[in-house]
Amino acid sequence: MNHFLDLADSSREQIVELLALADRLQTRPEPQALAGKILGLLFFNPSLRTLASMQAAMAKLGGTSFVVTAGQGTWQFETRRGAVMNGAPAEHVREGVPVLSHYCDAVGIRAFASGTDLDTDLSESAFRDMAGLVSKPVINLESAINHPCQALADWKTLDDLKVPRKAKFVLSWANHPRALPLAVPAATVHMAAMRGMDVVVLRPEGFALPGAIMRKAMEAAAANGGTVRETADRDDALNGAHIVYAKEWGSTTHYGNAEADANLRAKLADWCVRDTWFSTAAADCKLMHCLPVRRNVAVADEVLDGKRSVVQREAYNRMVVQAAVLHRLLSTPQH
Amino acid sequence: MNHFLDLADSSREQIVELLALADRLQTRPEPQALAGKILGLLFFNPSLRTLASMQAAMAKLGGTSFVVTAGQGTWQFETRRGAVMNGAPAEHVREGVPVLSHYCDAVGIRAFASGTDLDTDLSESAFRDMAGLVSKPVINLESAINHPCQALADWKTLDDLKVPRKAKFVLSWANHPRALPLAVPAATVHMAAMRGMDVVVLRPEGFALPGAIMRKAMEAAAANGGTVRETADRDDALNGAHIVYAKEWGSTTHYGNAEADANLRAKLADWCVRDTWFSTAAADCKLMHCLPVRRNVAVADEVLDGKRSVVQREAYNRMVVQAAVLHRLLSTPQH
Amino acid sequence: MNHFLDLADSSREQIVELLALADRLQTRPEPQALAGKILGLLFFNPSLRTLASMQAAMAKLGGTSFVVTAGQGTWQFETRRGAVMNGAPAEHVREGVPVLSHYCDAVGIRAFASGTDLDTDLSESAFRDMAGLVSKPVINLESAINHPCQALADWKTLDDLKVPRKAKFVLSWANHPRALPLAVPAATVHMAAMRGMDVVVLRPEGFALPGAIMRKAMEAAAANGGTVRETADRDDALNGAHIVYAKEWGSTTHYGNAEADANLRAKLADWCVRDTWFSTAAADCKLMHCLPVRRNVAVADEVLDGKRSVVQREAYNRMVVQAAVLHRLLSTPQH
Repeated sequence: MNHFLDLADSSREQIVELLALADRLQTRPEPQALAGKILGLLFFNPSLRTLASMQAAMAKLGGTSFVVTAGQGTWQFETRRGAVMNGAPAEHVREGVPVLSHYCDAVGIRAFASGTDLDTDLSESAFRDMAGLVSKPVINLESAINHPCQALADWKTLDDLKVPRKAKFVLSWANHPRALPLAVPAATVHMAAMRGMDVVVLRPEGFALPGAIMRKAMEAAAANGGTVRETADRDDALNGAHIVYAKEWGSTTHYGNAEADANLRAKLADWCVRDTWFSTAAADCKLMHCLPVRRNVAVADEVLDGKRSVVQREAYNRMVVQAAVLHRLLSTPQH
Repeated sequence: MNHFLDLADSSREQIVELLALADRLQTRPEPQALAGKILGLLFFNPSLRTLASMQAAMAKLGGTSFVVTAGQGTWQFETRRGAVMNGAPAEHVREGVPVLSHYCDAVGIRAFASGTDLDTDLSESAFRDMAGLVSKPVINLESAINHPCQALADWKTLDDLKVPRKAKFVLSWANHPRALPLAVPAATVHMAAMRGMDVVVLRPEGFALPGAIMRKAMEAAAANGGTVRETADRDDALNGAHIVYAKEWGSTTHYGNAEADANLRAKLADWCVRDTWFSTAAADCKLMHCLPVRRNVAVADEVLDGKRSVVQREAYNRMVVQAAVLHRLLSTPQH
Repeated sequence: MNHFLDLADSSREQIVELLALADRLQTRPEPQALAGKILGLLFFNPSLRTLASMQAAMAKLGGTSFVVTAGQGTWQFETRRGAVMNGAPAEHVREGVPVLSHYCDAVGIRAFASGTDLDTDLSESAFRDMAGLVSKPVINLESAINHPCQALADWKTLDDLKVPRKAKFVLSWANHPRALPLAVPAATVHMAAMRGMDVVVLRPEGFALPGAIMRKAMEAAAANGGTVRETADRDDALNGAHIVYAKEWGSTTHYGNAEADANLRAKLADWCVRDTWFSTAAADCKLMHCLPVRRNVAVADEVLDGKRSVVQREAYNRMVVQAAVLHRLLSTPQH
């Protein structure tokens, strides 16, 4: 493994092996495995879990980290090729990203979608351009259309909970004050499909996942014994669900149009996951969410504070699986 | 010791033991005592000493730290129970604080008073709520009404200076452009009382310490041979003082009312500690301050740059005593 | 070596020895040389390379670092002696800098020029005041008029490229949207002179380097076999150049006058280094720049992306030479 950019770069078997490594490092810690190794963390967007869990994972393996946050202690960066840089950004990523890579053994990068042009965001061109500038291993800490660390942690959470491979996994749209990126829904639907689950994407009209995201998930399902479908019918989706994975995202019909998006979602206040959503679900149906979550907008207190919620385990597993990723990318085999 | 939230959670003897541990770690460093341990630092408010000295203390014991600062690289947090989160804060502390605790062995939290409702601030409800969400040891890095790391460092400073237990300790209000929280004055008056000193709180009218703070200090004094009283008479207070501890805080009569507070303090420009304040004090009377200090507003240059000032020793002792706290909370006994 | 403030504090021979140490640490790493040592990094201004490369250099030697950034997680600082601190800055550097020095074994400080009064900035009084407050080794991470870490990295880059001692080194002014400080041009012209090179400062009228900077460089040249001259004639300067070191700085004729500076530079858009600049240069002439660089304003894409550019090697060498500086300042001789 040279980079960790997308679960789709690995086979199902390779992911299962990576999760086994995560388990092994929990059971038998290797506090010196990455002694002397340095992880550079470059954030173009805010972070809580990723910021803390990457540093913690590195420390548990004996390595160290440094953090650079655009606009916080350093400046803003230019990303457009050929730009005449007479505006606010003081440095181009074509300089800044390779420079940081000199100072570390692996680079983690978080760079959200522009949220203006769907095709550009779907192409992952900004992230791929940056990753291409670096000769060290790169870890995707959330890009325009992917969040493989979250997806891997969620996969482990499903395994920890002994959720059957063929269980019904419902990715449900949830309300939010703003139009959020497609990274987590795209990564989640693909992960669940790759795990071999029966995946239903539940979302109101105007929020259908783009064809490219659905096709990728369907290919993963076909290769691994799962299924993927999409619906706006909440009763149909939730009936018999083993997992409800709540996630907020922006209108895809009006991508980049904040006003049209706000008009659509003004009528969608009932897309806040409540206990009543689980009335026809499996008895032990769990609520998943990648966090941060808007309480009583996306998910009600009663659900987050109830026994169905496994959001803390998901967050904990971020550290666990990232330790495995770092170990795989950076550890030197012992002979 | 499971948490470090308030000196009042310990007996005087336990504090004396903790200070002895601090001394021992200075004399005989234990650079591997916390090897492999991780400290998470969560700041809801700005910091200089705490930010640096906690990381340094952890490093001196072989451990590592990560820092999360609300609004700086991460988002703002919601603290109100039952809030419908459709405003600026992206995450509730009910998620964020437990999540961070998964990634570390102890959590330090700084969360200042709201400064709007005195009873709420006195109740420490916000901090206690957060501490209650965490199953790891919690260190109070300054809460609404307490700052035990500062108080412990100040106690050690008094010991270092061989200030007698029964010496006269004057906590004096000092001027400042804004109404500052009650955390340090509350912690200071309690610490000096618990050490068994003769404590005088000197403050102008309108700035009396709340009854709950005074009662707690008086109980500590009664149990440990000290006394506590309050006065607006500067001559009386400073006469024979062994310590003048200068501190700024907001009007308690007009708590949360910035305009009324400003009107009061407009007439209080002479509450800037100057050399003349020490004319009737003990010959070797020292000036203490927790820092940061507004030069020539709260304390004059002549005092801060003179031989009475021990503010640098107080700041140095932050690192020293915090190392003892971390050692007590996190070290595994060696057999 | 007690501090690292200015290359001029060392002899040419001492710099050559320091660069040999840098080479040695690359060839034979010493991952435990600074075990248990702590570096405090205090930034009054934004940073990318310095922020990351100092932490990386310290980690490679087994030490740890903490970072404090004015206004980012901590407050703004007052620097004026005798100030009545009733404005925005919450702490004076006279308190803050010594406090931080207690928590570490060496302090790195970045504090840019005020950009208002040339004589004050040339005097380095603000930086010298701060360094004078600290009893630990101080590293200059860029002051009003110096940037010795950058100069040392550039010297090593010249050595790595086997650029002859007597080669023609052209420091060329380049365009920028704003008036930048004189720190890098001052450090660069001095470094190249001290290395013994034939230095030409190429700049338009209104941007002549101040006499004090030129005199210091000429003294270094005289002592070490180099030469220094200044010109506005680009053809003359670039003819036969072995190195073109592009750098942006503000008008010295109109120092601190943003409007007059902007008027001058409105006519200087052609001071963007392009391939055509190298038509009469030496065949293997290289482009150097300290970064960050405004692409297509200061240097064109065609040059930065072409084979002449060595900006990435300069950035890499920041970490390499800083490791040597840290080793020299902090390592304890082994017996």
